[in-house]
Amino acid sequence: MTLQDARTPENGPDAARPGWHKGYLTGSRPDIRVPVRRVHLTTGQSVTLYDTSGPYTDPEAATDVRRGLAPLREHWITARGDTEEYAGRPVRPEDDGLKHTSPRGGLRNLDAVFPGRPRVPRRGRDGRPVTQLTYARRGEITAEMEYVALREGVAPEFVRDEIAAGRAVLPANVNHPEIEPMIIGKNFLVKVNANIGNSAVTSSIEEEVEKMTWATRWGADTVMDLSTGRNIHTTREWVLRNSPVPIGTVPLYQALEKVDGRAEELTWDIYKDTVIEQCEQGVDYMTVHAGVLLRYVPLTARRKTGIVSRGGSIMAAWCLAHHRESFLYENFAELCEILAAYDVTFSLGDGLRPGSIADANDEAQFAELRTLGELNRIAKSHDVQTMIEGPGHVPMHKIKENVDLQQEICDEAPFYTLGPLTTDIAPAYDHITSGIGAAMIAWWGTAMLCYVTPKEHLGLPDRDDVKTGVITYKIAAHAADLAKGHPSAQTWDDALSDARFEFRWEDQFNLALDPDTARAYHDATLPAEPAKTAHFCSMCGPKFCSMKISQDIRREHGGDLRAEEIEAGMAEKSREFAATGNRVYLPLTD
Amino acid sequence: MTLQDARTPENGPDAARPGWHKGYLTGSRPDIRVPVRRVHLTTGQSVTLYDTSGPYTDPEAATDVRRGLAPLREHWITARGDTEEYAGRPVRPEDDGLKHTSPRGGLRNLDAVFPGRPRVPRRGRDGRPVTQLTYARRGEITAEMEYVALREGVAPEFVRDEIAAGRAVLPANVNHPEIEPMIIGKNFLVKVNANIGNSAVTSSIEEEVEKMTWATRWGADTVMDLSTGRNIHTTREWVLRNSPVPIGTVPLYQALEKVDGRAEELTWDIYKDTVIEQCEQGVDYMTVHAGVLLRYVPLTARRKTGIVSRGGSIMAAWCLAHHRESFLYENFAELCEILAAYDVTFSLGDGLRPGSIADANDEAQFAELRTLGELNRIAKSHDVQTMIEGPGHVPMHKIKENVDLQQEICDEAPFYTLGPLTTDIAPAYDHITSGIGAAMIAWWGTAMLCYVTPKEHLGLPDRDDVKTGVITYKIAAHAADLAKGHPSAQTWDDALSDARFEFRWEDQFNLALDPDTARAYHDATLPAEPAKTAHFCSMCGPKFCSMKISQDIRREHGGDLRAEEIEAGMAEKSREFAATGNRVYLPLTD
Repeated sequence: MTLQDARTPENGPDAARPGWHKGYLTGSRPDIRVPVRRVHLTTGQSVTLYDTSGPYTDPEAATDVRRGLAPLREHWITARGDTEEYAGRPVRPEDDGLKHTSPRGGLRNLDAVFPGRPRVPRRGRDGRPVTQLTYARRGEITAEMEYVALREGVAPEFVRDEIAAGRAVLPANVNHPEIEPMIIGKNFLVKVNANIGNSAVTSSIEEEVEKMTWATRWGADTVMDLSTGRNIHTTREWVLRNSPVPIGTVPLYQALEKVDGRAEELTWDIYKDTVIEQCEQGVDYMTVHAGVLLRYVPLTARRKTGIVSRGGSIMAAWCLAHHRESFLYENFAELCEILAAYDVTFSLGDGLRPGSIADANDEAQFAELRTLGELNRIAKSHDVQTMIEGPGHVPMHKIKENVDLQQEICDEAPFYTLGPLTTDIAPAYDHITSGIGAAMIAWWGTAMLCYVTPKEHLGLPDRDDVKTGVITYKIAAHAADLAKGHPSAQTWDDALSDARFEFRWEDQFNLALDPDTARAYHDATLPAEPAKTAHFCSMCGPKFCSMKISQDIRREHGGDLRAEEIEAGMAEKSREFAATGNRVYLPLTD
Repeated sequence: MTLQDARTPENGPDAARPGWHKGYLTGSRPDIRVPVRRVHLTTGQSVTLYDTSGPYTDPEAATDVRRGLAPLREHWITARGDTEEYAGRPVRPEDDGLKHTSPRGGLRNLDAVFPGRPRVPRRGRDGRPVTQLTYARRGEITAEMEYVALREGVAPEFVRDEIAAGRAVLPANVNHPEIEPMIIGKNFLVKVNANIGNSAVTSSIEEEVEKMTWATRWGADTVMDLSTGRNIHTTREWVLRNSPVPIGTVPLYQALEKVDGRAEELTWDIYKDTVIEQCEQGVDYMTVHAGVLLRYVPLTARRKTGIVSRGGSIMAAWCLAHHRESFLYENFAELCEILAAYDVTFSLGDGLRPGSIADANDEAQFAELRTLGELNRIAKSHDVQTMIEGPGHVPMHKIKENVDLQQEICDEAPFYTLGPLTTDIAPAYDHITSGIGAAMIAWWGTAMLCYVTPKEHLGLPDRDDVKTGVITYKIAAHAADLAKGHPSAQTWDDALSDARFEFRWEDQFNLALDPDTARAYHDATLPAEPAKTAHFCSMCGPKFCSMKISQDIRREHGGDLRAEEIEAGMAEKSREFAATGNRVYLPLTD
């Protein structure tokens, strides 16, 4: 594990974590090994949890950020025999934008060019579709499908069905063999995406690679690299080669860098060239704002906050400057053919999403959604896996309409929403304003939640913000899994509740989404080791713990009896209780 | 402002805050002066916000923590002529529990006995009811009602109606003349309660008084003093005399201290004496767990986490130890008579609330709720204002049933819920797991939310935790106000959205729930003063700001035209846009 050599992370993703170990579920063949986190309880039992942290948390796995992760899926892809290697597009200086032109944001500890194994890009033979949707429609269960079936605890055939119906996507570019396959769809566990990416103002490649591994350590299921600044191609290469999760991008950002920020100079050719560049690198899903049509732009004119999507505003500016229909919309079929040949998944962007409570659910937003529904059908006709992006800023009473309309208009394609924020009055707490909306929209059917960090609207997230954002969104996703009745979700809560009731403090910490912080908070008031086995905590002290008296009641009055039997025996038990002279030794949880 | 002399708070409630000033709305008489926060915008306009911070944020008000706040309501109370002063119950050493017996938790900078003006307790003449409910039912609009009408922006008659119908409470003990009246009911702004209080393990009087002023500075509408440790009477006296918001307690905690933690030694007389002690001090509302009946206790035996309410577990232990019905239930009518004579509001406690996701909405919980409905009617028949407490731990899909049942069973009495937490897997983040549930339950009808801090289940909240808890819950309450369509809620969001769209950074900070943190996060990446007027931020940099291009679109294509007119003029505008050679200078918000 030489990740440390390169950047010596404190508490990095490879730091050994007490109380759990990395395990694997094996499928029908030995190379289908699905990682899980096994939490060891002090009772001798263990709880198995979904794990997104990649090989970094496996002490048996040799990882080296300069070489990249092992190409887990390579053999699966080549064995299908429907792809071919080819020379690929040469990497050009402009791919990296303002590379090396500034002392800020330059390369520090990592080399500029990714030094790992040489790569030759791959695509569908003769440009044919090689998507998981292609296979699913043909009735084939791929290794990737079996992998996610094991991961989700469902039958492989169910996975195939959901993909074939377009209700789920399995983002897996043939040029990103390093990923551990995962699935996004409303009938699976709710997923969380973390955004990373440098900007022209701040941050380096090194920081972005670290944010990616850090985000996946805390539970990010996918990562979007939204870099807009220097070294944009090289940053992405480092991120892709080291990422165990699917990577998404917005190719328009890089295309705009290539024309030095002049939206009106964008062309379909420049955009297409950028998409191919990113397909060859291995980007798994791409946000495309092809639903921002010329005629929708005036609908935003009287909005409180206009257009707040970067991609949306760029395309709106292009449409206005040329008074022409969007080149993304007009060339959408060709774009589908390109994506199908690499199995890149569409994330159809909502360029006209609301940027404030006042603008939610307006005509501009829903007009674009109807166009996304049309594009979704075109994409499916080309075998391209597709999800649909959603807002944004929406008050609680208008959230459900968003999911219901999207599901209806887009034939149940996975919904992928940013929050939504349920109020705008709390900058610096938008992980919370949006975590509320995220939990609700996921319960109602959103398949993946794009996180929001405390820095939203204020600055670029740092390491702490990434962690806070991911954990907040894991809470939202898990709360939705519970509300949707997912059995494994309930098991996790039950294990923690049992530990709490039985005063197994170490088990509570180890089962927590963030064991480190839970332990630190507990120790802040009762640091001594014995306190971790105490039958009370610092909130109420020994006399007021409700959990303890509940245990007494159960012991005295029998947990195995039916209520009527307990009632019948209570007079006697009451005498016994008094006879023991039992002091009320009461702790509590809330 | 000698609060600083006593405890020199950093960023204390009396620290001058830039960008806003304290203002007052004056009612029909000069002594009805309702505090508001007027945020000054750089446009020259101002936004008026609800203000809970008390005289501490008024530079013209002389406050002194050793003297207490001015008795704002004293004249209103005496003018009604229906109360009398009387000798009162002597304060006894045991009222303070283990006072002075330990070096920890003792009195430090503050004197043991509150040194302020001498007080003589007051009650309804001949023990008659002197509650706001009494007056409302008689058709009288009190000064307190007019005050809250101004505060909420509604007609005084509406306030009277809601109180008379039992749909709202105005907690205001005649012995707590210092408060600025406020109202709790589903047809008013959603309120937030912050819990403070020492325990046998940690914290001092000084810290508790500071937590109270700190919590109200960030927006707490009421504060519960849940002290269970030393100096319990004296701590409460300091808190009451300095609190601008209603104070709630759980008298059972102090009663238990008086019998040294032996639940079975509790008696109605000890409890009643404690209630009278607290009524005379000025406690505004009291949690009473009178719904925990003997026959309900066995219903908790097979629960995952038993009984998690302190009060509930104490009463359950008492019932079992004596095999008798709860003395709170059996003496409830007498308790009503006592509370009515001081205008103390009931907060009927849900002692059998669930303590885990698995236990939500079970028979134990709903059996108790039905008894609370019965007690609510008894309380109302004695003119006692009443609210009903609610859970706790509830998955999202079971939240609405809680409000709907409570509203039905309890004749729409205000619901006062603790969260609820929507999952148990995130200790150290339970402000967030519960903030999600809080926003939802408030949207559906909860009138007041009891906050949860990051230390829930782990330790006692410190100053930072109190702030985080209050702000998280202000977000939840405000998101609910928006979803319920409260006009003043929308105004606040709109003001912030306008400031965001127009790059008025200082206005965004000043309008934020937490200006300090918003400003600090912004400055972390773009600290220079000019950056606060820049038309972009560090997230996207100058080329990618969507807000900027939206402004261009509006300027170029006219914000005053109808969409069709804009469309008609677009071809021409497009030529102009190109002619200006406008570079796409694009920022963004999300």
